[in-house]
Amino acid sequence: MQGSSSRLDVMNFLNEMSGNFPNAISFASGRPTEQFFALAHWMAQFPLFARHFAAAHSLSEEAAVNVLSQYGRTNGIIDDLIAAQVGLDEGIACGREQIIVTAGCQEAIELCLRALFESERDVLLVRSPAYIGITGVAELHGIEVAGLSCAVDDTLAFLRAAVERLEGEGKRPRALYLVPDFDNPTGAVLSRAARLELIAFCSEKSITVLEDNPYGMFRYEGEPIAPMFALDQAGCVVYLGTYSKTICPALRVGFAIFPKQLGGSAERTQALMHKISQIKSLLTCNTSQVSQAIVGGLLLSENGSLKRLVEGSVDLYRHNRDTMLACLEETFKKWEGRISWNRPQGGFFLTLSLPFKFLGGEAASCARDYGVLAMPLSFFALDEEQDYCLRLAFSNVTPERIEEGIGRLGRFVEQRMATPAERAAD
Amino acid sequence: MQGSSSRLDVMNFLNEMSGNFPNAISFASGRPTEQFFALAHWMAQFPLFARHFAAAHSLSEEAAVNVLSQYGRTNGIIDDLIAAQVGLDEGIACGREQIIVTAGCQEAIELCLRALFESERDVLLVRSPAYIGITGVAELHGIEVAGLSCAVDDTLAFLRAAVERLEGEGKRPRALYLVPDFDNPTGAVLSRAARLELIAFCSEKSITVLEDNPYGMFRYEGEPIAPMFALDQAGCVVYLGTYSKTICPALRVGFAIFPKQLGGSAERTQALMHKISQIKSLLTCNTSQVSQAIVGGLLLSENGSLKRLVEGSVDLYRHNRDTMLACLEETFKKWEGRISWNRPQGGFFLTLSLPFKFLGGEAASCARDYGVLAMPLSFFALDEEQDYCLRLAFSNVTPERIEEGIGRLGRFVEQRMATPAERAAD
Repeated sequence: MQGSSSRLDVMNFLNEMSGNFPNAISFASGRPTEQFFALAHWMAQFPLFARHFAAAHSLSEEAAVNVLSQYGRTNGIIDDLIAAQVGLDEGIACGREQIIVTAGCQEAIELCLRALFESERDVLLVRSPAYIGITGVAELHGIEVAGLSCAVDDTLAFLRAAVERLEGEGKRPRALYLVPDFDNPTGAVLSRAARLELIAFCSEKSITVLEDNPYGMFRYEGEPIAPMFALDQAGCVVYLGTYSKTICPALRVGFAIFPKQLGGSAERTQALMHKISQIKSLLTCNTSQVSQAIVGGLLLSENGSLKRLVEGSVDLYRHNRDTMLACLEETFKKWEGRISWNRPQGGFFLTLSLPFKFLGGEAASCARDYGVLAMPLSFFALDEEQDYCLRLAFSNVTPERIEEGIGRLGRFVEQRMATPAERAAD
Repeated sequence: MQGSSSRLDVMNFLNEMSGNFPNAISFASGRPTEQFFALAHWMAQFPLFARHFAAAHSLSEEAAVNVLSQYGRTNGIIDDLIAAQVGLDEGIACGREQIIVTAGCQEAIELCLRALFESERDVLLVRSPAYIGITGVAELHGIEVAGLSCAVDDTLAFLRAAVERLEGEGKRPRALYLVPDFDNPTGAVLSRAARLELIAFCSEKSITVLEDNPYGMFRYEGEPIAPMFALDQAGCVVYLGTYSKTICPALRVGFAIFPKQLGGSAERTQALMHKISQIKSLLTCNTSQVSQAIVGGLLLSENGSLKRLVEGSVDLYRHNRDTMLACLEETFKKWEGRISWNRPQGGFFLTLSLPFKFLGGEAASCARDYGVLAMPLSFFALDEEQDYCLRLAFSNVTPERIEEGIGRLGRFVEQRMATPAERAAD
């Protein structure tokens, strides 16, 4: 499978690999660790939210539970607690009325694209490689995607060039999707200066920034950088959040936060949120109030912040990253200059660059013959620039398995490096 | 608001009315009764499903709970229990591999329309008036909808005529949406003969029937009629189900069941399910495994059937229906021949026909001046045929409130009947 093939096939490929080689060590999926899952305890926080909801609506607790069992408000019922949590944990100041709670962040992405993209001239901009959950949705809707295939520090320059080109073709750059903190798949981080410059440029060009931040709370070193939403004075950033990584994926609770004044206009914010709310009501009615109440109860039990809850995971991920970096160093140092990798300051992923192509065929051979699963970066890419790279996820695998898995990957690479170049680069 | 205006505004209208007149007696929303909600007890069935899941996957219970807390299979994890439940409760024979679990039935509708409608020539057929959740989704996707505006017994004749007309225009009738049991909004039931004839015709014309059956388990009198899915030998019916009415809406668990051989071809079924699964993975990833596990646990605790669970609700709804029918009789008998209503054998709704138009303005005046909320049938209609009718929901209101509410409606009608015709028909 190449960058040119359908995003929609990538997930299947991955699932097939996992299914066919269940004993392979997987660096493929970016699932959170299960080490600190406590679903029974979390579900037991439901009554805490029910009491909060009862008090807020002047209901008895019994009546509140009945209301919570029903259909509910399209935009959600834990908007107040989400506003408080992103305030405490991400430095984001927003009112509850700026929030729409969604069935996972994936629904937020779908809703934003559907509401923002109106004309065939509208183009979505992404960094390439990009998360498949954004390019896949765009493909599904026939939205043209322009990829910025560049180092993270060059994003603005490439954005400028792409916008100029698109405008020249009579197209409208409508939105820019970014994961500023610990990008999926690369692990890269946008500097504060880059964030500010991108906001200024996007605001000038009326491009809405979709800031997806699933990994922001997973920083292992260095100083945190404020989310673009928090830096945005122009009202051009929509913030996309999720509890899949901080709590767990099974709840399917995410959210979108809209600027108070989109492009300087409160009416524009209202119009966009109204449209999204209308679409959501026809897509999933409302986000499960059971899931929302569990998240809400947990937030209440943690005094509004998830910092304490993720402490253990942060330590575990840091240790996993360090283990992987050490293993990479040990396994690949002999090819210094030909094989390289990055040292992400957070998140779930790092990128390994090889001197030969690592595409679907190589991934399959790796899984079949060496018992290790990794994602070709070409799966995420919009061009051939990433054909030599792979994504290694270190979030849901033990240090022992990391050691064993990188060793296996080393043996695969060893064999490939010993193969004549014309075959290896095939 | 007229049949010609946007479906997307109807929900807002309803919410606004409820918000502005919170003390009005509402016959507007078709919510299930809260009388038998037992969410805490239902949530407590989670471990029962975890054990079931653990056994099925040879996992420890702890490991099973961790897997359940993660991202999961796109098509869902309670497909086996759903297959058993529809077998026991609806007489539907199907394998688990025919099922996709969705975030409420609304997502199933969205997914089916998105997967089935490929060309601008494709037309969706519905009975008019129709559930807004189908016509709204169609509108959102720019899918042309053709309404069969006829008595339930004339559905086939009107379908034939519509198909002939559409084919003449070079269009392709792609799917027919039906609620055969206790239709929303009319409460009408398709006879067994009509179901068989419709299946034969649709199969011949390669029209996929979308059979939506939220109310099938709520029959208050008369003999049950097999669902179209169970009668279908040709593989043309997709069955849409939900646990929002039998358990509760807050879980957001619904499902679609596909025929073994769509149009006689197992490959066609696989292709459709694969496409829907792809779209779902980009829309909501997978249905909340917490919600699925709660539904699953409850199904296990009830030995697979929901019949016992809905017994209380069935009795309550029957009593509510009877109370409403008695009140209508008492209030409106003096206008016999000019005002009429139906006697639904099940479901949540009945239809009242007036000698004057009952549109958005009348609904607003009813709510504001008489403290009673009802849904104009024109909101659901594709033409002006329903302008004189309203939908009365009796599912989530007490008998006392029904008496008071129909009395209020009677006073509204009384005043209108005393008004000169030209004003009343305005």
